[in-house]
Amino acid sequence: MDQKERERLEKIVAQNEYMKYLGLELLDVDLGYARARIPYSHKLLNPYGYLHGGVLFSLADIVAGLAACTYGGNSVTIDGSMNYARPAMNTKDIICEAREVRQGKHVAVYRVEILNDERLLLDTGTFTFFMM
Amino acid sequence: MDQKERERLEKIVAQNEYMKYLGLELLDVDLGYARARIPYSHKLLNPYGYLHGGVLFSLADIVAGLAACTYGGNSVTIDGSMNYARPAMNTKDIICEAREVRQGKHVAVYRVEILNDERLLLDTGTFTFFMM
Amino acid sequence: MDQKERERLEKIVAQNEYMKYLGLELLDVDLGYARARIPYSHKLLNPYGYLHGGVLFSLADIVAGLAACTYGGNSVTIDGSMNYARPAMNTKDIICEAREVRQGKHVAVYRVEILNDERLLLDTGTFTFFMM
Amino acid sequence: MDQKERERLEKIVAQNEYMKYLGLELLDVDLGYARARIPYSHKLLNPYGYLHGGVLFSLADIVAGLAACTYGGNSVTIDGSMNYARPAMNTKDIICEAREVRQGKHVAVYRVEILNDERLLLDTGTFTFFMM
Repeated sequence: MDQKERERLEKIVAQNEYMKYLGLELLDVDLGYARARIPYSHKLLNPYGYLHGGVLFSLADIVAGLAACTYGGNSVTIDGSMNYARPAMNTKDIICEAREVRQGKHVAVYRVEILNDERLLLDTGTFTFFMM
Repeated sequence: MDQKERERLEKIVAQNEYMKYLGLELLDVDLGYARARIPYSHKLLNPYGYLHGGVLFSLADIVAGLAACTYGGNSVTIDGSMNYARPAMNTKDIICEAREVRQGKHVAVYRVEILNDERLLLDTGTFTFFMM
Repeated sequence: MDQKERERLEKIVAQNEYMKYLGLELLDVDLGYARARIPYSHKLLNPYGYLHGGVLFSLADIVAGLAACTYGGNSVTIDGSMNYARPAMNTKDIICEAREVRQGKHVAVYRVEILNDERLLLDTGTFTFFMM
Repeated sequence: MDQKERERLEKIVAQNEYMKYLGLELLDVDLGYARARIPYSHKLLNPYGYLHGGVLFSLADIVAGLAACTYGGNSVTIDGSMNYARPAMNTKDIICEAREVRQGKHVAVYRVEILNDERLLLDTGTFTFFMM
């Protein structure tokens, strides 16, 4: 993928205040693909002491949205859904990977997986974007 | 609804660090119902300058989860989905309302609506909880 | 809403073989709205003896898709989700209503409710369409 | 997986009238896994001439539900969602595969993929079941 595109995406992450709060670190981007990490951090927990479902959805939405931008253009989320299979706890980091299902001219669909330190699958999600 | 239950839910919101970051204010709870508000705030925006989809999902998940707790017990999100119909911008606050579809013994389903200052419907969502 | 549009939608329902199998009867259409009925019928049941979730999803997809066509144009389903709150049984008919969340130029979002004879809410769903 | 369980699932498919209409053929089941096929058939099309989204959702719901039953017990769909990436046409058959995300005691989550003759990914979905 184009190096300029990669830098554009890295800049988006570096400059956004909410992504900074999440501690989001972009690990890899390629055509139709993105991977990022957030830490297990006290300020991101739900009342039960594991990472908040909204934090995990945010991570997934961001990573899938970045993956959809790897072909150029900007992605606006039309809808997203998350299935929470296992609690996000007892892990140092959380990894999120997004993979293309279909990158259309107007509409893009990406699947995401959220994994813990031991690469155990915690959550799955699917996001639909409008491309501009 | 029971006053002690109400205080329990208010305490959850008051003590959680992520909810504080969101600026979440609980406005009303009743059996099978909850309403809360977050401000349109710089630290919650996406790169386009409107409230981040992950922030809105977090709001919806929290409000629906609180509504599911109004009968007693604790709710754990099984899955959630959001449809983003209109950008959350040009508004001072964002209101989220959650209403019961079904409160089962094990599984609860709630619908949410996200509205701007003028009560325009911005987003809809549905959440499924496991009750413990 | 335009009478010609209405007739166009009625014709779609009358000519489609799968909709005939479902026994789908279009009850009402208006701008951003549609309502239809299917019978509780032996040939539509799941192994437990209530209406199959796939049948109810089909009904919802069709009704929401017709509602999205009331402004003209054709709708193609991008995605859809259903939450099954109560079993569809002990009822003569099942009613499905679809209401507009947003009718955009390219993307339309509709919510659906599925009700039994006594107008009890059985299921809810949300559908996203690409308009052509 | 237990041979008796396998026969129980094959019997469910063989006896259900709606599954017969779909032409559903169970190809494989194993612990946390199921695969089935339906034909591209005139009686399953939408008005545009490709397989109806409701038919594909039905297929996915059935296959995921069967996969969830491979550990024993019965599955009731709590919710399901489908993303339609490519039209289901110009293919003799449609294959659906369901794989376990998590098989809990009460709640099970399965992902599905729908593929055409050339194993091109057409649609993805996720289903949540209550186990009884």
